[in-house]
Amino acid sequence: MRRYGYAELRSLCVETFCRGGVPAADAELMAEVLLLADMRGIASHGVVRSARYLDCIQAGGIRPDREPEVLAEGEGFCRMSAAGGLGIPASCKAIRRLLELGRQRAMAVVTVNHSDHFGAAGTYAQWCSEAGLIGFAMSNTCPLIAVTGAAARTIGNNPFAYAAPGQRHRGILFDICMSVVAAGKIDLARVAGEKIPLGWILDGAGRPSDDPALILTDAAMLPVGGHKGYGFAVMVEVLAAVLGCAGVLSEVKSWNCEPGRDANTGHCFFTFNPEYFGGLAAFRARMDAMIEEMTSAPKAPGVERIYYPGELEFIREAEARQLGVPLGAASSAQLLRAAALTGVRSPFLAELAAAE
Amino acid sequence: MRRYGYAELRSLCVETFCRGGVPAADAELMAEVLLLADMRGIASHGVVRSARYLDCIQAGGIRPDREPEVLAEGEGFCRMSAAGGLGIPASCKAIRRLLELGRQRAMAVVTVNHSDHFGAAGTYAQWCSEAGLIGFAMSNTCPLIAVTGAAARTIGNNPFAYAAPGQRHRGILFDICMSVVAAGKIDLARVAGEKIPLGWILDGAGRPSDDPALILTDAAMLPVGGHKGYGFAVMVEVLAAVLGCAGVLSEVKSWNCEPGRDANTGHCFFTFNPEYFGGLAAFRARMDAMIEEMTSAPKAPGVERIYYPGELEFIREAEARQLGVPLGAASSAQLLRAAALTGVRSPFLAELAAAE
Repeated sequence: MRRYGYAELRSLCVETFCRGGVPAADAELMAEVLLLADMRGIASHGVVRSARYLDCIQAGGIRPDREPEVLAEGEGFCRMSAAGGLGIPASCKAIRRLLELGRQRAMAVVTVNHSDHFGAAGTYAQWCSEAGLIGFAMSNTCPLIAVTGAAARTIGNNPFAYAAPGQRHRGILFDICMSVVAAGKIDLARVAGEKIPLGWILDGAGRPSDDPALILTDAAMLPVGGHKGYGFAVMVEVLAAVLGCAGVLSEVKSWNCEPGRDANTGHCFFTFNPEYFGGLAAFRARMDAMIEEMTSAPKAPGVERIYYPGELEFIREAEARQLGVPLGAASSAQLLRAAALTGVRSPFLAELAAAE
Repeated sequence: MRRYGYAELRSLCVETFCRGGVPAADAELMAEVLLLADMRGIASHGVVRSARYLDCIQAGGIRPDREPEVLAEGEGFCRMSAAGGLGIPASCKAIRRLLELGRQRAMAVVTVNHSDHFGAAGTYAQWCSEAGLIGFAMSNTCPLIAVTGAAARTIGNNPFAYAAPGQRHRGILFDICMSVVAAGKIDLARVAGEKIPLGWILDGAGRPSDDPALILTDAAMLPVGGHKGYGFAVMVEVLAAVLGCAGVLSEVKSWNCEPGRDANTGHCFFTFNPEYFGGLAAFRARMDAMIEEMTSAPKAPGVERIYYPGELEFIREAEARQLGVPLGAASSAQLLRAAALTGVRSPFLAELAAAE
């Protein structure tokens, strides 16, 4: 892992996406959202994905010039379509609308359909928190998880995030997927030539497997906590896809396997406004008290510190702002590939290549 | 386990609660909600708790004559207080208000503070579903779970439920707590004299323990999926207690350990209305399609049937309506104790006692 200047990385990302056919303002949003994930330590959703978005654009599955459309709108809600465009700019625009709606009432909701991969869900929830609201963000994905009892991929490893603001503490930020462990962790075991514990994945015949290489072919991931993860994955599917009128389950196309098709991914974003529940200042103080009571609990043997949900991400983000954005070899390699795909030339590329 | 007539059980419950000082209409709600849990196979939240509610009433911690109050109300939201009364009737009244609000807009939310144990969360979510809405219901509880890294009980085993309606299928109903396994399952192992797997609980010093008897003293339960269950428990705490202005974490009193104190439990209930997202009929059809795709997936070896979340509860409920309400020995014993506490005499009590 090496650290790079935020400004240089951002410029490179923006230029790469612009040359890839993304309008300038949307390329800025792509760079901001991907780099925020890298800064928070969620490398799996950072610039490592930059080339994949461009693959889909070049294959015709994502049309970067499409502007999101409002399908219906009313008191406290908005239904949008990303119109087959990029999921990240569409989600940024959905959040702008959500914040307008959410600041003026107790609850507000925006759904997005005909979208694609929207990056790290927590980014959107945290923007709501920074606006003084409790924010929720979620998306369905193409099937990756076997529902309880199934032998094969049935439902997406649906990301789910929420965030709520504190005062002395930045607040809670929670961003997860529904599998026992993230696909990235399984792939690390594959690269290292290690076995994985039984209970993480099923092989193609629905049997528990310890072979991480199957994640590249037909393995199904298992939901965290069995029926509990199953039910939470369905919750996201209900809100993001059934309510949001996006593709449901197998109707969602994989951006890895079918980059040339409209994924028809669905997102759902909603807020609660503490101003209507005793006021934001009191809410922030109560959040602080909750955080401090949790993190000052007696520690289990061997534990040095108890973190609140999101604290590690905020610590890493602060470090990245001071020391530079950390990128591993896979991330810099994918940035180089993205630059090659779009013909970007920059002296910064040599620096990235040297680190590989 | 034996089955009993619904009408007889309901009469007994109503009479018992009435004699215990609960107003007649609220006693009806207590009976309805507790028996629904027993019918759905959630015996831990059924009439087995009837005597515990009366213990709290007799100890002064629950004042059954208190009517819920509206603290604040406006466009799409209502903040209520249970005023130290019973959690179940207060939650039923909160749901009535929520349905009025939720039918007329895309989203609505009702919070309740100064409440107590509200029974099975799924009951309230399912009522929203039966009204054509997506319903969420949750409550905090006194601390029972060690947050990740903690040695002791820090946060409640906060129940969380949602439900959404189908057409051919009744819909999804998901109702869980945040521990790896329910306390009831640990207690079954204790009664059977069996060890439990490491990873379910911590002993009083924060070390993993296989001794289920510790659940009666100072064991802390572990959250499902580690930091994932931790974050979901905090989510419920944020919505039900921080937003809902109820007791947070240790401010919530245990109805088992401190029956004489106002528990100051908080609940949060909210809805999404599919009429604003393409219409309820289309939503129901899409729910059916999702359910059918999941339950017709290829089955893992040894699996006979894939269930959708809530399906087992609905099957049990239908059986109970036909064959009678199933009660185990613990449930009938607690009903007998409740009747003894309040001086109820009924020939049906002899039938219950004979089954023990």
